[in-house]
Amino acid sequence: MTPLEYLEKNKDNSLGQLKDLIRIASVSASSANKDDMKKCADWLADYFKTLGLKSEIMATGGHPVVYAEYIKHQDKPTILIYGHYDVQPPDPLDLWESPPFEPVEENGYIVARGATDDKGQLFTHVKGVESYLKTLGELPLNVKFLIEGEEEVQSENLPTFIEKHKDKLKANIVVVSDGSQYGIDMPAINYGLRGIAFVEVKVTGPNRDLHSGSYGGTVDNPVHVLCRMIAALHDSKGKVAIEGFYDNTYTITPWEKEQLALLPFDAEEFRKSVGVPQFWGDKDFSILERLGMRPTLDINGITGGYQGEGAKTIIPSWASAKITMRLVPNMNPQEICDKIESYLQKLCPPTATLEVIKHGGGNPVQVSTEGPWLEAAGKAIEKVFGKKPFFTKEGGSIPIVETFKSVLGLDTLLIGFGQHDDNAHSPNERFLIKDFHRGCQTSAALIEKLSQVKA
Amino acid sequence: MTPLEYLEKNKDNSLGQLKDLIRIASVSASSANKDDMKKCADWLADYFKTLGLKSEIMATGGHPVVYAEYIKHQDKPTILIYGHYDVQPPDPLDLWESPPFEPVEENGYIVARGATDDKGQLFTHVKGVESYLKTLGELPLNVKFLIEGEEEVQSENLPTFIEKHKDKLKANIVVVSDGSQYGIDMPAINYGLRGIAFVEVKVTGPNRDLHSGSYGGTVDNPVHVLCRMIAALHDSKGKVAIEGFYDNTYTITPWEKEQLALLPFDAEEFRKSVGVPQFWGDKDFSILERLGMRPTLDINGITGGYQGEGAKTIIPSWASAKITMRLVPNMNPQEICDKIESYLQKLCPPTATLEVIKHGGGNPVQVSTEGPWLEAAGKAIEKVFGKKPFFTKEGGSIPIVETFKSVLGLDTLLIGFGQHDDNAHSPNERFLIKDFHRGCQTSAALIEKLSQVKA
Repeated sequence: MTPLEYLEKNKDNSLGQLKDLIRIASVSASSANKDDMKKCADWLADYFKTLGLKSEIMATGGHPVVYAEYIKHQDKPTILIYGHYDVQPPDPLDLWESPPFEPVEENGYIVARGATDDKGQLFTHVKGVESYLKTLGELPLNVKFLIEGEEEVQSENLPTFIEKHKDKLKANIVVVSDGSQYGIDMPAINYGLRGIAFVEVKVTGPNRDLHSGSYGGTVDNPVHVLCRMIAALHDSKGKVAIEGFYDNTYTITPWEKEQLALLPFDAEEFRKSVGVPQFWGDKDFSILERLGMRPTLDINGITGGYQGEGAKTIIPSWASAKITMRLVPNMNPQEICDKIESYLQKLCPPTATLEVIKHGGGNPVQVSTEGPWLEAAGKAIEKVFGKKPFFTKEGGSIPIVETFKSVLGLDTLLIGFGQHDDNAHSPNERFLIKDFHRGCQTSAALIEKLSQVKA
Repeated sequence: MTPLEYLEKNKDNSLGQLKDLIRIASVSASSANKDDMKKCADWLADYFKTLGLKSEIMATGGHPVVYAEYIKHQDKPTILIYGHYDVQPPDPLDLWESPPFEPVEENGYIVARGATDDKGQLFTHVKGVESYLKTLGELPLNVKFLIEGEEEVQSENLPTFIEKHKDKLKANIVVVSDGSQYGIDMPAINYGLRGIAFVEVKVTGPNRDLHSGSYGGTVDNPVHVLCRMIAALHDSKGKVAIEGFYDNTYTITPWEKEQLALLPFDAEEFRKSVGVPQFWGDKDFSILERLGMRPTLDINGITGGYQGEGAKTIIPSWASAKITMRLVPNMNPQEICDKIESYLQKLCPPTATLEVIKHGGGNPVQVSTEGPWLEAAGKAIEKVFGKKPFFTKEGGSIPIVETFKSVLGLDTLLIGFGQHDDNAHSPNERFLIKDFHRGCQTSAALIEKLSQVKA
């Protein structure tokens, strides 16, 4: 039996195991789920052991890393497979059509938190490795798995971990599946990822919630102050108004414009799929350019004052917002955090006080678009999907890819098996079951093709 | 024993009964407290019965009214005492130093939700009536109690109720204690109350929360849209920017300016007490004028997107805000709701949709500042406090006072026993125990003085 035949024969079994993995509510942002995080790490480490890999759970400053390795061939390449076992919080819960951590099959999808981001995708590579070990008894190259538990909380501790375990993580190329194809039956290789910067801002006014009837008209309302600031974060053309925000940002290249032109993009269909009456944004750039190649700023959450039913006539004591910015090459998250802080502090009126918590973030990354590794990946994809991949840039951020380059000196193959409408950070997250299986097959094919590259 | 001696002798007992009343968590805004609302109405109705009053719980479209009456004298005035047994929601719970519905005594205060607004104040009149019945065996005039359960949710059903029971509620004058003295040992009669208008606004963008990395830069973020709108609700001078907001608003009179000048107001002390670095607001008016005689607009709550710990990198599907406006004479809540709606709809960009829920509100009210009823009230206050009351205007709203005028043709005596720093709608609400007892005594004195007015 060949590895691909093994995968074909064990489809149901593979999907069942993925469901077991998904059922563990490994929400890294929520301290209430700390036990689930540990359980999920254990599940993976145990699974690697059943395959015969040397596996361990390794401490970090936060949630632990699951590490596993198969080292046998001195003369063969070593690939480092990265993934993350943590998932986004499931809220708002009332918008889920089925419980977030009880995977269901629907219209060819597996629906659950983590289905596509990233449990379903990381598990394709576990299965790719398994398919060799269960048929040929060995892998044609060396494999290291680095599965982290903090991707959804900015991978805060992973750079230090990688620095510390530089030798252990030595490899020739990194493989990451934590993104999307261009569309259904349109596999893609991502050649760039945006960086991210995250700040939380809190405006404080009076020392307590005040009766709006007894104090209104004399005390500045922190919600008003915060809203005035947020309103000033973009200009009327949709550009970010923070001083120096666009300093030194890279310029989209002619080759990139060619790749964009190859994509079968239907703007109207895209608009309908998100259900907005009109597009918004910086008209100096096309929709596709804005989607992956330009920096952005979004408020991810805002809160202040009374949140319950009915009325509560108060001037709230404080209001706060969570802000993330997506960065393109030549932008630095620390610098951007500093810039937004000084911009907002200048905007803050003398009637209130502002606190900006700068969480930093991850650098943007651009990987090579040629060379033997990329050729091998193209061939593996073509073998399974029957067509060549598109070259795309991913709007999301996998900050750690930049660390692989700067600390380990490694390029990364970004091969996403998901779809853009998988609801990755939304209720009813899903993953095409067909793509899960093709992902497993592509992983097996990739192992074969990469093993032939001269390391 | 005289009524005042009775009150003096039964102080502990009275305070204990008030605590029992406060322990019932009668939060009208929260459907989870529906049973508590019923329990609180029953408690009051039963108490009236033990005093020998005819008492009943009367249905409205919402929470019921507690009605009680003592009718004996054809040739004597009838006073209608209004109060409310519902309270504000206790959130945010973590800022309370003791549980909101477990009254404690501290530094001469009774601390609990409802202590001053309005259970402690309405109970002074129950005790005033009791002091006569338990000593002289009868009252020197006729009394009707109208205690509602929806004051904190805009008294939505009370105007209809009053209209329907017009005959039953016939009286000569209304007495309301649901406000503040000017300061400690500075009793006051309020001659005006602001009205209120309440709207909820919701901005909807994409049909679900979107991954900010995959969609940012092309989809307008509903939080940004809402913040731009809120920022546009005031101009840079602190005036409300809604078109027509100030149309026909009344002008502060010379007599009013004289009354303001009599007040011992220390702006710096006031600023420190609320803990803001600087005052805010329309500099064309003094702080005292802005506090009670000018219309205002405040966001009472804003919410949108992720509210938990850490980061969740989404473009939220929607964002919403609760907005109340305080109105001065000649402003109408329905008109103001219409004006803010059309102003906001004009501001709403074509990239999102806006829904404005107009809850209406209550009319502003200005009561007579002379006449025999007011003189009698002044004498009662002077008898207990040893000084003449100030004449003040209350920044808060008791919309129903306007209905007493328009439907029943009655003036209202607004005699607040609370203090402005009682934290009426905030955590750690409190009521000076000394003022509770003086309130009971003033009620008894008022019964005597009002009984002498020729109806």
